[in-house]
Amino acid sequence: MKKIAVIGSTGSIGTQTLDVIREHPDQFTVHTLACGRNIDLLKQQIAAFEPEVVIIGRVEDLPKLKGHLGHARAYAGEEALVEAAAHSDVDFVMNAMVGARGLLPTMAAAKAGKKIGIANKETLVTAGHLVTQTCREHGAELIAVDSEHSAILQSLQGSNLSEVERIIVTASGGSFRDWSYEQLKTATPSDALKHPNWSMGQKVTIDSATMMNKGLEVIEAHWLFGLPYEKIDVVIHRESIIHSLVEYIDKSVIAQLGSPDMKVAIQYALTYPNRLELGGTERLNLLEVGKLHFEAYDQNKHRCLDLSIGAGKAGGSMPTVLNAANEVAVELFLQEKVSFLGIADIVEKALETHDKISQPSIEDVLAVDEETRKRVRAL
Amino acid sequence: MKKIAVIGSTGSIGTQTLDVIREHPDQFTVHTLACGRNIDLLKQQIAAFEPEVVIIGRVEDLPKLKGHLGHARAYAGEEALVEAAAHSDVDFVMNAMVGARGLLPTMAAAKAGKKIGIANKETLVTAGHLVTQTCREHGAELIAVDSEHSAILQSLQGSNLSEVERIIVTASGGSFRDWSYEQLKTATPSDALKHPNWSMGQKVTIDSATMMNKGLEVIEAHWLFGLPYEKIDVVIHRESIIHSLVEYIDKSVIAQLGSPDMKVAIQYALTYPNRLELGGTERLNLLEVGKLHFEAYDQNKHRCLDLSIGAGKAGGSMPTVLNAANEVAVELFLQEKVSFLGIADIVEKALETHDKISQPSIEDVLAVDEETRKRVRAL
Repeated sequence: MKKIAVIGSTGSIGTQTLDVIREHPDQFTVHTLACGRNIDLLKQQIAAFEPEVVIIGRVEDLPKLKGHLGHARAYAGEEALVEAAAHSDVDFVMNAMVGARGLLPTMAAAKAGKKIGIANKETLVTAGHLVTQTCREHGAELIAVDSEHSAILQSLQGSNLSEVERIIVTASGGSFRDWSYEQLKTATPSDALKHPNWSMGQKVTIDSATMMNKGLEVIEAHWLFGLPYEKIDVVIHRESIIHSLVEYIDKSVIAQLGSPDMKVAIQYALTYPNRLELGGTERLNLLEVGKLHFEAYDQNKHRCLDLSIGAGKAGGSMPTVLNAANEVAVELFLQEKVSFLGIADIVEKALETHDKISQPSIEDVLAVDEETRKRVRAL
Repeated sequence: MKKIAVIGSTGSIGTQTLDVIREHPDQFTVHTLACGRNIDLLKQQIAAFEPEVVIIGRVEDLPKLKGHLGHARAYAGEEALVEAAAHSDVDFVMNAMVGARGLLPTMAAAKAGKKIGIANKETLVTAGHLVTQTCREHGAELIAVDSEHSAILQSLQGSNLSEVERIIVTASGGSFRDWSYEQLKTATPSDALKHPNWSMGQKVTIDSATMMNKGLEVIEAHWLFGLPYEKIDVVIHRESIIHSLVEYIDKSVIAQLGSPDMKVAIQYALTYPNRLELGGTERLNLLEVGKLHFEAYDQNKHRCLDLSIGAGKAGGSMPTVLNAANEVAVELFLQEKVSFLGIADIVEKALETHDKISQPSIEDVLAVDEETRKRVRAL
């Protein structure tokens, strides 16, 4: 029985993780549920999964849990979260938090030698150098949860990293893949939020339209699989059926395919390197799919992707700036305060005006993150 | 250093196997070269690879090798071939023979516990039950060489057969994939020999047009991977880029892709489960490929495929009848003595009029093979 800590249990990945756990009561049990402010949903989750430990964001919400805890102990705040991620009873930490706050529980889990399902983008984008080193030192294991990274992980099974020529990360191209550069000048938030394949949160959907999402995934892939950026390619594949590919030194290419359903990748992270049956998810029907398309991305339309790869190669604190500037820029776009193409301008300016720290500590990362947000908002 | 016996060294797979060996002189050495009657090419191969042992089909050709053997010992005939396949110095037997005669060296190699690259279709189609059992008993290993089976083998790496939901064998659809059933009634050998993707021998190209080729591959896959026919699907994929796929119980699908080049599969068989660099072969460029298509096969046009699956399910001597009847029917078609659609009629009739042997011995298989050929020619 694998005891799981679900950090960010009320978000999209968190709830789907619980869906997977619910399907395999003989394999998985929830040890810890951690969330921010969605206390109502948390109460339901506590009733359904009977965890040992519950962590919430704010102390003032603790009284709301009274009478709903079962045998669980409840705590609030960052320190409690960090402790929970390193708890000796926990076998697997699913970090499904959103934002830079996800960094501290990942580091704690890494120091405790845990298996860590890594759905928190910021962890590897901003502190890949620290997290991977800590994992190596303490025997912790980072396991991909994103569908693209899961596809790469699955396509690497039974092989050796030294046999890898390159990986090819696929991208749907987002809501604007068929818009011209001219059209993008007047694109609105509601246009951008119509994602063709995946149902995701607002921020991720906009990132998908700018392809910043793919850029962040390239940086994550660099750290997850220890590959130089020169060995990571991106190709637009509008059907999102091939989730990513690995080309080997013998020119053979292995790919993972499936219907667009995050539960496959989430379950694989939990069962890795084995597999379990997964009900409810649609089987891939190639005859129904009929065609798969591949296109190059457009360096003008998808400037955020090249900015990401540049920041990744520059390393140090640059990816932190990229990520923080992008978050603020997307917020401003959603508030219709900047244009769609303005997002890349903001990110580029933030990168250009940042004084790079080569080997940032966690404190540096958090400070740069905060400082960048302030700086971008002040622009 | 892996010592290799190349059985059928002057054929298409044989020469490509030698091409691969030539690229890795530090990994592979040719211990044995065996061929039928192409003594001129054999002489060149002996000079280039300096084998220990040379086997040819007919005793009367032995004098032609005089002065061309280097340090090799030369023998002729079936008995010598069987001995060579079991030679204690040989690490890997690549059986690239064409026809039912390939069966005996495979069985000998299996009894000697060898690693066997299995490019001889008849081995598994006609005697899969005996060969796989002999391999199990003597610790021999059958390794796929066909691009489709290699794709499945590669897509199974790091996984467990019990996790497999089904395999999907892709088919180009052959030269007639865009012809209507009406048009096929008057199809000629020269029409059929225009294969769109692969450059192969005449027999295989016709088998590709009837999809008998795919039917035989389904039977081979059944024995190679120990899967029931219900778990083996066929889909037409005209680009021959995805060489085959494996669907797992968690709805995740792993596929192997590449440019249509047999050398990738041949080398993988030699290096399995590892990989080596492979020069000269084109890298897969998804942007150039642009689109991948998937279609169902047509049960009227591709009757040979359903006949194969039926013969495979019936088991015993039925696949031997299928294969032998098809070989004669293809010959007759190439001589313009029967129509293209007549090939399936001949095969069907041969199956219907055969008295099945449930557990045929090698002798039974060879007898049924011969008897079927005579019977079909007499029709």
